[in-house]
Amino acid sequence: MKEARPEPTLLEVFPNPQPGREYLIEHIAEEFTSLCPKTGHPDFGKIVLRYIPADTCVELKSLKLYYQAYRNEGIFYEAVTNKILDDLVSVCEPRWMEVETRWSGRGGIRSVITASYIQET
Amino acid sequence: MKEARPEPTLLEVFPNPQPGREYLIEHIAEEFTSLCPKTGHPDFGKIVLRYIPADTCVELKSLKLYYQAYRNEGIFYEAVTNKILDDLVSVCEPRWMEVETRWSGRGGIRSVITASYIQET
Amino acid sequence: MKEARPEPTLLEVFPNPQPGREYLIEHIAEEFTSLCPKTGHPDFGKIVLRYIPADTCVELKSLKLYYQAYRNEGIFYEAVTNKILDDLVSVCEPRWMEVETRWSGRGGIRSVITASYIQET
Amino acid sequence: MKEARPEPTLLEVFPNPQPGREYLIEHIAEEFTSLCPKTGHPDFGKIVLRYIPADTCVELKSLKLYYQAYRNEGIFYEAVTNKILDDLVSVCEPRWMEVETRWSGRGGIRSVITASYIQET
Amino acid sequence: MKEARPEPTLLEVFPNPQPGREYLIEHIAEEFTSLCPKTGHPDFGKIVLRYIPADTCVELKSLKLYYQAYRNEGIFYEAVTNKILDDLVSVCEPRWMEVETRWSGRGGIRSVITASYIQET
Amino acid sequence: MKEARPEPTLLEVFPNPQPGREYLIEHIAEEFTSLCPKTGHPDFGKIVLRYIPADTCVELKSLKLYYQAYRNEGIFYEAVTNKILDDLVSVCEPRWMEVETRWSGRGGIRSVITASYIQET
Amino acid sequence: MKEARPEPTLLEVFPNPQPGREYLIEHIAEEFTSLCPKTGHPDFGKIVLRYIPADTCVELKSLKLYYQAYRNEGIFYEAVTNKILDDLVSVCEPRWMEVETRWSGRGGIRSVITASYIQET
Amino acid sequence: MKEARPEPTLLEVFPNPQPGREYLIEHIAEEFTSLCPKTGHPDFGKIVLRYIPADTCVELKSLKLYYQAYRNEGIFYEAVTNKILDDLVSVCEPRWMEVETRWSGRGGIRSVITASYIQET
Amino acid sequence: MKEARPEPTLLEVFPNPQPGREYLIEHIAEEFTSLCPKTGHPDFGKIVLRYIPADTCVELKSLKLYYQAYRNEGIFYEAVTNKILDDLVSVCEPRWMEVETRWSGRGGIRSVITASYIQET
Amino acid sequence: MKEARPEPTLLEVFPNPQPGREYLIEHIAEEFTSLCPKTGHPDFGKIVLRYIPADTCVELKSLKLYYQAYRNEGIFYEAVTNKILDDLVSVCEPRWMEVETRWSGRGGIRSVITASYIQET
Repeated sequence: MKEARPEPTLLEVFPNPQPGREYLIEHIAEEFTSLCPKTGHPDFGKIVLRYIPADTCVELKSLKLYYQAYRNEGIFYEAVTNKILDDLVSVCEPRWMEVETRWSGRGGIRSVITASYIQET
Repeated sequence: MKEARPEPTLLEVFPNPQPGREYLIEHIAEEFTSLCPKTGHPDFGKIVLRYIPADTCVELKSLKLYYQAYRNEGIFYEAVTNKILDDLVSVCEPRWMEVETRWSGRGGIRSVITASYIQET
Repeated sequence: MKEARPEPTLLEVFPNPQPGREYLIEHIAEEFTSLCPKTGHPDFGKIVLRYIPADTCVELKSLKLYYQAYRNEGIFYEAVTNKILDDLVSVCEPRWMEVETRWSGRGGIRSVITASYIQET
Repeated sequence: MKEARPEPTLLEVFPNPQPGREYLIEHIAEEFTSLCPKTGHPDFGKIVLRYIPADTCVELKSLKLYYQAYRNEGIFYEAVTNKILDDLVSVCEPRWMEVETRWSGRGGIRSVITASYIQET
Repeated sequence: MKEARPEPTLLEVFPNPQPGREYLIEHIAEEFTSLCPKTGHPDFGKIVLRYIPADTCVELKSLKLYYQAYRNEGIFYEAVTNKILDDLVSVCEPRWMEVETRWSGRGGIRSVITASYIQET
Repeated sequence: MKEARPEPTLLEVFPNPQPGREYLIEHIAEEFTSLCPKTGHPDFGKIVLRYIPADTCVELKSLKLYYQAYRNEGIFYEAVTNKILDDLVSVCEPRWMEVETRWSGRGGIRSVITASYIQET
Repeated sequence: MKEARPEPTLLEVFPNPQPGREYLIEHIAEEFTSLCPKTGHPDFGKIVLRYIPADTCVELKSLKLYYQAYRNEGIFYEAVTNKILDDLVSVCEPRWMEVETRWSGRGGIRSVITASYIQET
Repeated sequence: MKEARPEPTLLEVFPNPQPGREYLIEHIAEEFTSLCPKTGHPDFGKIVLRYIPADTCVELKSLKLYYQAYRNEGIFYEAVTNKILDDLVSVCEPRWMEVETRWSGRGGIRSVITASYIQET
Repeated sequence: MKEARPEPTLLEVFPNPQPGREYLIEHIAEEFTSLCPKTGHPDFGKIVLRYIPADTCVELKSLKLYYQAYRNEGIFYEAVTNKILDDLVSVCEPRWMEVETRWSGRGGIRSVITASYIQET
Repeated sequence: MKEARPEPTLLEVFPNPQPGREYLIEHIAEEFTSLCPKTGHPDFGKIVLRYIPADTCVELKSLKLYYQAYRNEGIFYEAVTNKILDDLVSVCEPRWMEVETRWSGRGGIRSVITASYIQET
């Protein structure tokens, strides 16, 4: 079980029920885990996704499965943050989107990485 | 009991006691519950309403009954947030209004949806 | 949807994986709701179940559905606490069990009711 | 309005739904206020009532009105704690009862008074 | 005792010790109580007063007595917030003033009302 | 001003309103200050007094003035804890009494000293 | 990477530096993850290990690797708690040991399982 | 001991180690005490000093002794805040400085006073 | 600087001011650091010392210097806890003493070690 | 062991995986310690590093070793903050960088120093 890789094809969207209004959606995933590509040790974090939808919204169950697919991936903090943003932007095409990853720490240092996207007009 | 549907007709207003001053009113409903339209499982949330009144203020007891009417409604997070805002704006006609819904989470992801309205001048 | 009544037949059990050891199981349901039988207004609470299993353990998904079945029941704090304890004891036959219900409050007073059962030997 | 004095006649009881079991009931009133008999200044506190019922339980709405009746009474911390315990014991005749009053403080000192009763057997 | 009505005449001021500097004063009254004009039940709140003084500052003991005078007044949240602001502005004539009232809640909804004043120049 | 020394003569008592019942009184003084007898630097602490009264209770205002009298006394943590207990016991003659002093810390170490007394029978 | 199964052979011990004294050791692993054997979805928890050593102590790095080996195991809450206790007792042979697992929750219910062992004498 | 009055002469400075960079220094004194000039009762507060240094920085030990010198001074909240700011500006000549005093409260009202200075250019 | 080794000779005592009474002294050192003897990496912890003195009390400044002497010592959690207890008992000869060390964690696991001593009678 | 001095040569970088996007990286080191140059006593603090990378990112393990090298350095708060910023800027050449040091306090005063750098364009 759990063989899926974290690809954008795992993500599903549904039509924005109020496309005429700019409003903010925030999904906070408290339990994210991936592997350190150097040591193979697990990393634990929290992923905060915030966006202003355009035509579509991210479907929550597919978002959960997409996050779970990182469980056995070896990937750095900076790379995973940018990849999640890129994957979600490509599928959802929002007006604005931000991904903040908060990591529990290794060796006494904990990290937060924040990347955002804004639709060109 | 509890047969009312969540319609704007449940909401009552009273005259703003200080219409000449722009001031802020915030009502925080700690216990809101509706149903997930896909699975029928209950959703639990907190609704934060903030507004600057024009001629009328929302009457608190009617607001409570309006929120309670969602108890057995199947409705998505994004839709309920926008519907509450639309219903309150239609009845109260404020200068500015914001509805923030904070949901307890399903499958390890908790969500916050925030929509706002500003009176055209 | 949600038509089930809160009866012991909703509860399922599975064999205790370690029946030779006395150990403690605690399930904390953060979001419970029922109705006040006098006023029809919703009550919100948190149910803490603690028990030492004998031959069987309570199955978690059935416990969740059993709790959800109280959603539209009119029942007092003291009665619901004792009924949950009686229903769970009849199905699970534990060595010891305690049900603690913590209610969010009405009229500025919040309540906690705690009832327990011990197997006669 | 608010003319009632804090007398036991304000308190109502209802039959204990499970008189065969010893179980614990706790009612936490977050907002209690009375007056200092010396200075007339208001005191603010929190009243925690815990009891094991015998034949009757205290009715919550009557408890709230009984507490509200102290609003304009001048009474000391020690006296009000013992009076609440005496009044509730006389009306409810519990197996065991405890009243804990937690006061917000005057002149940099805050106080907690705790008195209890146990039925003679 | 406690017969005073909440009128501006209860409020006293003293000369600002540093009238040449714009600085901020905040007084936080943790325990405010008035009555609901509809039901007669007590309301409990916290009053945050912030201002930039001009020639005078509000004397603290008189502010406390002014707040205490609301104890047996029946008045709505929106009205009491605006009245406190108006009374304090009339007596103290500040450069800027804000009154924020935070209420403990009735029926599961707690409220915050914020009104402000700025001296015309 | 502030010339009084911390002597038992500063303490006043009043008759216990319920001498037939063993009940607990707790007075928590959040802001206590004395001086370090070695360095003259101020010490800051919190004094928790708990007792079961016999015939008399400690009067709160006199307790406050007694504590304030330590402001310019040079005295060690262990000594002040035992002295407060001895002074209060001599004046109030309780059934049981405990004094807990919690100090804010010097040089990265904070301290708690707890001494108690029980009436011989 | 991460192919090890969670077997006692992963655990290492070192000689107790003070075998003549009964003292308590507590290791709190904040980030534990395994899989639900029914659904394959990840479970997240915290493992608290407490023990009084006899001749040997558990080596911390081996404990960490032993816990990490559960990452892709499908195992129920009750079973994993008892297995961790059994594995550690077999390797470390302590005087007393307790394993407490605190789980983040599924479907609104979070669980705590606590099992302990005492050396027969 | 403790005879010093709170004068600027108690304050010492040292050369700013990085005068070419605008950076922020914050010193938070958790335990400040002075006397109420009306009643002689002690006031307790917390002093937050924030500044951007120009050529000199405030020496910490002298700052502590300067604050301690207020121990037996009778002075109002508003006056002490402005005096600390004036004294520190006169000695340290910063680019910007702010003094925030947070007081523990008297009669149920706690206060915060904030004054700032900016160097003219 | 900092060349002292953590030996009992660093510790000083003073006569117990109240040797006739059994009372409890607690010293909480928030910032303790030593080195891991395997890796040389720093460990950070908090040391809680509790004791009932007999004839002498531990002098606080010497306790601080004794703790600081561990700064560059390589020593395991279990060993340092027992050594601190042994050193303090040898110098202070208390009726009872407990040392609790709380460590910040390495590799996601944080530890607490608690050892105690009681005087033989 | 621990002989390294805190020099920029200890710091390593790796190529920014997303150089085309401005995004924020935050590393929070909870446990930093150095020595006071005047007294030789240890200082304890927390270092928050925030930056927007240009071509390179700071490698975490080297950052940890660089921070550890301050363990036996005597250096003032203001100096260490500016030195960490200068060292990191020289090695990493970011678009923007901020170093915030939060110190646990000496003599009842705790400090926060914040310095930042912005790349000239």
